[in-house]
Amino acid sequence: MNPTACLLVIGNEVLSGRTQDLNIKFLATRLGEIGIPVREVRIIRDVPDIIIGAVNEMRARFDNVFTTGGIGPTHDDITSECVSAAFGVPWEIHPEAWARMSAQYAKNGSEFNAARQRMATMPRGAKLIDNAVSVAPGFTIGNVHVMAGVPRIMQSMFESLAPSLVGGPPILARAVHTVGVPEGAIAEGLTEIQSRYPALDLGSYPYYRGTGNGVAIVAKGTEAEVAEAAIAEVAKLMLQLGGTPIAGEPPAA
Amino acid sequence: MNPTACLLVIGNEVLSGRTQDLNIKFLATRLGEIGIPVREVRIIRDVPDIIIGAVNEMRARFDNVFTTGGIGPTHDDITSECVSAAFGVPWEIHPEAWARMSAQYAKNGSEFNAARQRMATMPRGAKLIDNAVSVAPGFTIGNVHVMAGVPRIMQSMFESLAPSLVGGPPILARAVHTVGVPEGAIAEGLTEIQSRYPALDLGSYPYYRGTGNGVAIVAKGTEAEVAEAAIAEVAKLMLQLGGTPIAGEPPAA
Repeated sequence: MNPTACLLVIGNEVLSGRTQDLNIKFLATRLGEIGIPVREVRIIRDVPDIIIGAVNEMRARFDNVFTTGGIGPTHDDITSECVSAAFGVPWEIHPEAWARMSAQYAKNGSEFNAARQRMATMPRGAKLIDNAVSVAPGFTIGNVHVMAGVPRIMQSMFESLAPSLVGGPPILARAVHTVGVPEGAIAEGLTEIQSRYPALDLGSYPYYRGTGNGVAIVAKGTEAEVAEAAIAEVAKLMLQLGGTPIAGEPPAA
Repeated sequence: MNPTACLLVIGNEVLSGRTQDLNIKFLATRLGEIGIPVREVRIIRDVPDIIIGAVNEMRARFDNVFTTGGIGPTHDDITSECVSAAFGVPWEIHPEAWARMSAQYAKNGSEFNAARQRMATMPRGAKLIDNAVSVAPGFTIGNVHVMAGVPRIMQSMFESLAPSLVGGPPILARAVHTVGVPEGAIAEGLTEIQSRYPALDLGSYPYYRGTGNGVAIVAKGTEAEVAEAAIAEVAKLMLQLGGTPIAGEPPAA
């Protein structure tokens, strides 16, 4: 069994449609590669009770919780204090975070003011997640990993955290696609193949291109040979239905 | 008070990182325009108990639930039968959906086979949502609106549904941005402005461009004059901090 993950995206800007989230795809892909499949994502508002409730529900249900967003210096950045409240521990200056940030602001000639000091305030017992982009660190407490919302900062934090995560066998994908075979024609045969490969997750994804409509079938699992055997059967099915199966996913539109 | 919405994105392909979700931003934007702000989003797996549980929890908590994904013809398309189970009603042929689809397949010379017939099977009492792209309809039951996952089909369904939704005052946004003023410098003054405009949601979003780092402040609310007054105060604050405030959001990177 692979350890599991869920993502908690904290921020009104995603819920309002202002911001296109790019973190979910990145984290889902990277976590799959290290064998910690993402089982659920929640996008929630910057409201204390909502954040605290979601953190406590999800850290009980999943092996890992990754949060993005809400750790900057402004009034709407309340993730850190809410995670403290969820764990029932004091929210206090983290000496190493403080040292890194005060050194950085001194170097820049900027003031390490009260708003910025909040970014060095963390749940007692937090372990820092390095931030190679803008210094202010994320942190881990228990099985909750608290990261920035800005994609390039989040990605930097994730890569510094990744070696310490306990993963399982990587989730591999094998795929085949064809034009000219609608989903509704391949569905019955696909159900039959899926039933013989219970360890795989077989997904069917129609696509639309100027060159024609097609379908891509993706097999996900932890054993390459099993995924390849299933995809070979799908390719045969596509041929029988008059398609021209091509290995892999279709090229981007 | 505006009526509320939540989104339920159903599909392993988003959780695995295969697919970049584009529906959340579209729906959040359009629902904000018609005064039904999105309060929460969940992305969940194609597993019956998980779908049924989420539908029942969210339809009790929000005025509207919009689902995307899982209404195609293949084995992993189980949204419709799960919504039936959530409502405790029979899952049965919908005569109008059946008529539309059988006419379409007859016209195409395709077989209206068992897999496709599943797309005409719906919870008893479902009201159809038109699909101008590929015929197979979505549906509404109670306060749950069930739509396709493919963005252009979902958008077509949403626009046919929108006139029947009961909205509130539109959620408006006003914004101002500047380079040269870091978030940590503007945070204190911004907190003070937010405290005097409790009806607004003031968001602070750093951005990074080749031309310099900046910050955008966005005020969201239902009264244009109030949002404009708050943004005028933010612009003044930016000036005091040495910035050059420019109305609106920064141009895309």
